[in-house]
Amino acid sequence: MSVIDFRLRPPVKGFLDMVMYAKAERRDGITRNHGMQPAASAQAKSMDMLLAEMDEAGVTCGVVMGRYSGLYGSVSNSDVAEIVRTWPRRFVGVGSLDPSERKRAIAQIDEAIALGLKGINLEPGSYPQPLHTDDRRLYPIYAYCEDKDIPVTIMAGGSAGPDLSYTNPVHVDRVAADFPQLRIAITHGAWPWVSEILHVAFRRPNVYLSPDQYLCNMPGMEDYVRAANGFLAERFLYASSYPFIGVQRYAEWFRALPIRPELLPQLMYSNAARFLSLA
Amino acid sequence: MSVIDFRLRPPVKGFLDMVMYAKAERRDGITRNHGMQPAASAQAKSMDMLLAEMDEAGVTCGVVMGRYSGLYGSVSNSDVAEIVRTWPRRFVGVGSLDPSERKRAIAQIDEAIALGLKGINLEPGSYPQPLHTDDRRLYPIYAYCEDKDIPVTIMAGGSAGPDLSYTNPVHVDRVAADFPQLRIAITHGAWPWVSEILHVAFRRPNVYLSPDQYLCNMPGMEDYVRAANGFLAERFLYASSYPFIGVQRYAEWFRALPIRPELLPQLMYSNAARFLSLA
Amino acid sequence: MSVIDFRLRPPVKGFLDMVMYAKAERRDGITRNHGMQPAASAQAKSMDMLLAEMDEAGVTCGVVMGRYSGLYGSVSNSDVAEIVRTWPRRFVGVGSLDPSERKRAIAQIDEAIALGLKGINLEPGSYPQPLHTDDRRLYPIYAYCEDKDIPVTIMAGGSAGPDLSYTNPVHVDRVAADFPQLRIAITHGAWPWVSEILHVAFRRPNVYLSPDQYLCNMPGMEDYVRAANGFLAERFLYASSYPFIGVQRYAEWFRALPIRPELLPQLMYSNAARFLSLA
Repeated sequence: MSVIDFRLRPPVKGFLDMVMYAKAERRDGITRNHGMQPAASAQAKSMDMLLAEMDEAGVTCGVVMGRYSGLYGSVSNSDVAEIVRTWPRRFVGVGSLDPSERKRAIAQIDEAIALGLKGINLEPGSYPQPLHTDDRRLYPIYAYCEDKDIPVTIMAGGSAGPDLSYTNPVHVDRVAADFPQLRIAITHGAWPWVSEILHVAFRRPNVYLSPDQYLCNMPGMEDYVRAANGFLAERFLYASSYPFIGVQRYAEWFRALPIRPELLPQLMYSNAARFLSLA
Repeated sequence: MSVIDFRLRPPVKGFLDMVMYAKAERRDGITRNHGMQPAASAQAKSMDMLLAEMDEAGVTCGVVMGRYSGLYGSVSNSDVAEIVRTWPRRFVGVGSLDPSERKRAIAQIDEAIALGLKGINLEPGSYPQPLHTDDRRLYPIYAYCEDKDIPVTIMAGGSAGPDLSYTNPVHVDRVAADFPQLRIAITHGAWPWVSEILHVAFRRPNVYLSPDQYLCNMPGMEDYVRAANGFLAERFLYASSYPFIGVQRYAEWFRALPIRPELLPQLMYSNAARFLSLA
Repeated sequence: MSVIDFRLRPPVKGFLDMVMYAKAERRDGITRNHGMQPAASAQAKSMDMLLAEMDEAGVTCGVVMGRYSGLYGSVSNSDVAEIVRTWPRRFVGVGSLDPSERKRAIAQIDEAIALGLKGINLEPGSYPQPLHTDDRRLYPIYAYCEDKDIPVTIMAGGSAGPDLSYTNPVHVDRVAADFPQLRIAITHGAWPWVSEILHVAFRRPNVYLSPDQYLCNMPGMEDYVRAANGFLAERFLYASSYPFIGVQRYAEWFRALPIRPELLPQLMYSNAARFLSLA
């Protein structure tokens, strides 16, 4: 069985400058707060070890997302493209952009697609000037991606923004309603707004949901699982959010959840493949 | 044991023009997303079949609510009154109004009561110009109903409005506080804001709650049940939200929940009878 | 094992004028809505009975918080100090203030500390002019307490304010972010916003959480417990919120929860002792 890990940040290139690798102690503290142990590959910043852990976990492919962030550090589209080029069967890439100038942002989308990246990752609350997900300045970007059939991932959960208002699913709800043909994947599961994002996903068929690390011992985890077993079965996306949770430990954790076994291939692979239009 | 189904839209008169009957595929998709099967009577649009399903479910009386909606379609007070006249022992009616002109809205309340309807149904988020439940333009209506002892049902859950902000229970909380003698029933259970609406019901003794279809396999269902077994025992209202859930299937579902058996008569009948001042 | 009950209002001095003692029926109704029975000491307004109940419950020390409230009644710092003086081994005190004049509020902090009180209790939503927790007018107070290393308790749960917006954890989130060295304890657990406040506590290491009475049969109680067993183990504060729940009944209730036994000493004692810098 093939498995796509929908959010995985390997210890290489620009990722090494990000807070999650530069401040190992903070990262490991978060990992332990999830009741998990840090991954050896993350602590060693070793690609070889990560690839071995992916093998052990049965993760055939990781989705590597670029990032433009004031707070957490940035990873350029060319870095993402080079990671994909170096390990072509193990990773697919998603690009990012700087939304502060509209025309340049649109150009960055085109460049990302030309580089072979499969979608665009937005992290509105983490930009140097934080934005809510439904900020009007993002609407030309959503419109362009909808018109070009480019899927969009939005980090709108966890610490995605200066305060809790940035993850309130009302912002995603409006975007999903205003761009009904745009495929949107919410990473970090809009946690802690579990009931509310599940309502949005129930109502908006263009919303995919990836609770990733916030599935691990967090309030609401049973509700994510119930939705994955029910109305969300075709739009749930499996992701470890590595290096916050190790790919291998996450896989063990996930496979022990009370998920209907016949759904695992779609939750762990085909929903992501369809979302990203992988061949 | 008598049972009142507090929200039931029969396949007759103006209801047939509503989205829930006109777009059967959408409706059946919602039903299946709840993990339920569509009701035969809904698919056949058959009153005879519905009445038979009500008999099998032990539902002695259905509350038929008028609606004035931009999005979902409208059902006039005269239609509701005629349904009640046609099947007097099987249905009681609740009227609706168009809030856009204050004096006409008040006149509609008087007309509804004169027609024998037992309360007024408001769906603020679904009006052609969507309103939040605590919009000042609704306050003359609340004041009038409080003064006349007319109970009000408010659809403030699920997809009740353009976005998730319309179901935020803060809006209901303010209305319940500002009109403490007004009996208010929240249909669709203010889902997905389960904890929050339960707080409102805990604090405001004039708030009744009917989770209806959102009790079926949705996040938070255990909390609705816990409240029904506890502080909400005298203000929980049983409802299928037919045709989204079949009356018979809902009754089976409900009776299998871990609800204290001695509470069933009040949850399924007497709370609704008291709320609507039925003889 | 020593136990600190972090929120306990004894039937003496200014507390007797508060709504919770003056309106016994309202209080007992709330108690029963939690599925609990009123405490005999509360009904009798007897300090001797309360001290006996504390003994039976194994509660060695109660935290008595002053209050300045428009709605619920006030208890002065001198009253709190006198309670502590009268029963020095059984109670520690936390002061309160009137925030409406900045300089006087700061003076009240100094007076409270001079009286031997261990922190400052703020109840922003309950002031005669209700404030949100992140109201700018409270910021000089937070700044002063941060600078002086004075811990702050904030009532930001339950009916703490005119409506549900006052308990939305976004307001606490901003304060915790803007004053990262300020120790903040949220009483009433920010209920009903359970997931959301747990996110805030997960993200902000300076936030302590005390669900107190809202742990009893309320939606979300399992999530409070899960957090206490996990990332919140060093910042969970045990409290009965007496007289709403009896100290003895609360202790029985709490000890029956699925909490890891080895954590009880910190949840029930040392977290509070560290928060208040008790010797």
